[in-house]
Amino acid sequence: MISFFQNLYQTILKNDPAIHSKWEVVLYPFFKVYICYKIGHFFYRHHFYFLARFFSEFGKRRTGIEIHPGATIGKNFFIDHGVGVVIGETAVIMDNVTLYHGVTLGGTGKEKRKRHPTIENGVMIGAGATILGNIRIGENAKIGASSIVLKDVPKNKTIVGIYK
Amino acid sequence: MISFFQNLYQTILKNDPAIHSKWEVVLYPFFKVYICYKIGHFFYRHHFYFLARFFSEFGKRRTGIEIHPGATIGKNFFIDHGVGVVIGETAVIMDNVTLYHGVTLGGTGKEKRKRHPTIENGVMIGAGATILGNIRIGENAKIGASSIVLKDVPKNKTIVGIYK
Amino acid sequence: MISFFQNLYQTILKNDPAIHSKWEVVLYPFFKVYICYKIGHFFYRHHFYFLARFFSEFGKRRTGIEIHPGATIGKNFFIDHGVGVVIGETAVIMDNVTLYHGVTLGGTGKEKRKRHPTIENGVMIGAGATILGNIRIGENAKIGASSIVLKDVPKNKTIVGIYK
Repeated sequence: MISFFQNLYQTILKNDPAIHSKWEVVLYPFFKVYICYKIGHFFYRHHFYFLARFFSEFGKRRTGIEIHPGATIGKNFFIDHGVGVVIGETAVIMDNVTLYHGVTLGGTGKEKRKRHPTIENGVMIGAGATILGNIRIGENAKIGASSIVLKDVPKNKTIVGIYK
Repeated sequence: MISFFQNLYQTILKNDPAIHSKWEVVLYPFFKVYICYKIGHFFYRHHFYFLARFFSEFGKRRTGIEIHPGATIGKNFFIDHGVGVVIGETAVIMDNVTLYHGVTLGGTGKEKRKRHPTIENGVMIGAGATILGNIRIGENAKIGASSIVLKDVPKNKTIVGIYK
Repeated sequence: MISFFQNLYQTILKNDPAIHSKWEVVLYPFFKVYICYKIGHFFYRHHFYFLARFFSEFGKRRTGIEIHPGATIGKNFFIDHGVGVVIGETAVIMDNVTLYHGVTLGGTGKEKRKRHPTIENGVMIGAGATILGNIRIGENAKIGASSIVLKDVPKNKTIVGIYK
């Protein structure tokens, strides 16, 4: 439990160049929403869907970040600023991923079951980027601000603009 | 009154594939903001502009969805996720329209009176799309995520990217 | 103190065509967030970084507008709607600037010290535009909705789409 907070604290401290004092971390929207996500995700895995969504919504109201409690998230995940982020139910996020505000990991409406993206290790997704469908963003890829991605991205690639 | 809630409930249930239990509906941001909009719209029509905006802002603070109380909205309207949606005062939305988060139905700053779009029956507008000016989006048109639309769209057309 | 509120009030009244009654101004998100910014900015200049961020976050939670307390802002600044706006720590905004919702004045992650844009007098930035890096947007330039700007913009120019 303590190590959970320690990791979260370290992740935020490492990621933001605008931080000046250590206690600021508890004011970070990502700090709040990630705790809410963890609680919601616990209930989701035990099929208490109402409670799961309750905590997800609770976090979203306070931060503008919507992480579906069913999403799978790895280590050292970080969202900077965050207003407008939407992460879908079947999205999978591996380790060391960073998102900025306004990022959508959503569905196209055409797929069933796994209908949201898989984001591999070390990926960085810029502000306002939209990633739709059951696609994979390869290791260490960078997705530029406001890009639209509708197909698999190879690892280490940098995407700017529309990629479909 | 009861039928109002029933319709709203049915609309949400029908539109979201991520829903697991029926009571989740009351947690939906659209559920909250639509009730606020209806109250605000009532006051707007009776020229109580302060109260109208009060309810509009009340709903927006809780959901991130800004629907001007003067907007005209038809049946079975639905907004998924919703953070960042802005719907202008003179926008007209017909029946069975679905919006995603981040959609703007705004003005260009050049028109007076009717300065926001008209969205016809059955239109779907993807996440982050921006639709500006007194234009018409024709029946059953689909506007792709992050598109920018500055002129009339014919019915059944699908728009991706900049359309001006 | 009184003149501060008077100026803020006048700026909002002048900028929004959808306003119907004068008291509506106090319901405006920009009214709230700008007061929070001023308090936070005061603490920031006196190196109380925790309190500075506390007020910045307080304002952001209520409005969806994130203005870093370190940002420098001139006279007659106005943000319309505002959900999703992010203004970085070293951003400089001169007089008579107007932003719409979803605008990012952010960093690229490559610069140190001054890493956010400078916005000169009279600039208008449309909804969802992203401006990244230590660049200058020249006097009276207009940045269209959803544009992406990564290099200096000359004065009086209008930008649409990607500018890099």
